[in-house]
Order: sequence, then C-alpha cells, then structure tokens
Amino acid sequence: MEIRCELIRIMITETGDHQVIVLKESNGERAFPIVIGFFEAAAIDRRIKGHVLPRPMTHDLLGSVIEALGGQLTKVVITDLKEHTYFASLVIRRGADSVVVDARPSDAIALAVAGNTPIFVEQHVLDEVAGPGNPGFGFNV
Amino acid sequence: MEIRCELIRIMITETGDHQVIVLKESNGERAFPIVIGFFEAAAIDRRIKGHVLPRPMTHDLLGSVIEALGGQLTKVVITDLKEHTYFASLVIRRGADSVVVDARPSDAIALAVAGNTPIFVEQHVLDEVAGPGNPGFGFNV
Repeated sequence: MEIRCELIRIMITETGDHQVIVLKESNGERAFPIVIGFFEAAAIDRRIKGHVLPRPMTHDLLGSVIEALGGQLTKVVITDLKEHTYFASLVIRRGADSVVVDARPSDAIALAVAGNTPIFVEQHVLDEVAGPGNPGFGFNV
Repeated sequence: MEIRCELIRIMITETGDHQVIVLKESNGERAFPIVIGFFEAAAIDRRIKGHVLPRPMTHDLLGSVIEALGGQLTKVVITDLKEHTYFASLVIRRGADSVVVDARPSDAIALAVAGNTPIFVEQHVLDEVAGPGNPGFGFNV
C-alpha cells in the first residue's frame, strides 16, 4: 500500500556534500530523512519556491520533456530501500497508458514539487524507517 | 543552416563554479567554448566515458523518460546566442512527429553524448563566435 506523504523540510548545508530532505506521512506523524545531493536539493528548494530562472535548469527540462511528449506526471512513489539507498518511480500518464520510470527520490521529488504532484511512500518502507520498531532511525517532528 | 559539430574538450576545474566545453565543426577548424556548470560538466564527462552509476543520475533519468514515452532524441542544436547566453534545442522524434524542446546547451550535450546523437550549431552562431570576424573570441585548436 502506498502512503501519501509530504515534503516537510529541506536542509541545505552549502559546505556539505550531502543534503537532507524530510518526508512525513500526510495523515500521521511518522517522518523520515533522505540524504540527497546538493544539486538536487537546490533544485527542490528552487522549484518549491516557484523561482523561475531565465533558462531551464535540468529538472525544468525534465518537466518540459514530459509535457512535450504528451505525458503528465501523476505521482511519484518511494518504492524501496535497499542497502541504505532509496528507490523511487515516476508514474507518467500518456493518453490511456501509464508508464513507470525508475528514478532517485531526489529527482522524483524535484519534479513533483513544482506541479503539486502527490508523493507516496510504500508502506513497508515507511514501516522500516519510521515505524515503531525503529524509533531511533525515525525522524520525529 | 545547421553545421555538424563535435564535442572535442571538457575542461573541469573542481575549484571553479564554471566549467568549459569546446565544440568544433566536424568539417572545418572553427571551434568555440561554452561555459557551463559543474554538475552538467560532470554529467557530460561521465556519460561520454560510459560510466554507469548504480542509480540513474538526472541526465540518465532524462534519457529514460524520453525512451519511456516513446521518443528518440534525433539531434541537439545550439540555436542562438543572446547576451552571452547560448540557447539550444532537443529534437525528439516520436512516431511521425518531431517535437522541439528548449534547453541549455549543457543539458542538450549531456543527453547527446551518451547516445552518439549528432550535435549541430546554427551557422550564424558559429560565424559570430568562431568566424573570421571574431578571431579573438574564437577558440582555435
């Protein structure tokens, strides 16, 4: 089952290689962090604030390409966690078809935030990283 | 008219904000530099060398999205230069249609190099930056 989540925090440290975003379930209190790269964190921050640069940045181009090919991003899903790496999918509708594209969570979320596309997390992932059995790993907010 | 060009050099300075790539016409000696960002230069370098990371980086995802939506990148074109900014287009074929998507040259070239997609430069751009009237601005190799 997929649990609807929200991006509730972006922590950017300009001196660090790794940045952190925090996802929280929409109808609950469980939350967890995902470590991402600086470029992706900056893209998420810019796109969530609606800052439009004179020229399309890479994630803007990704959005343009989906639209130009007749697609619409309907949701992004954090699907799995393996060996400390989160996996995600873009779900893109095109006419009657729906295609699923493998992505990193950071790229998926950078795409999602600009268009208010819903973000979901597979229940087993949320249970693993933010469940009652893993209070230390969970990120309480 | 579009002039076929090749990417002949990537100059990455880890301490600098701006990196440089050099394009040269395939059937001639004219060449010129384009200043791009570090993230994009690293993507071009990685993709031209065929390095595949365990998870898709943003430009890899862009390639996957084009393919998943039934498109094929047929060429990229550096179309214009305005106020020291180069403009480019992705030309994507999908069935009988061809769609053109506005992009920065760095993203366009990062996409092109992984699939041996041809790179073109509009003649008026090449004439302006690498023509005989601008020997100082041209980048002779």
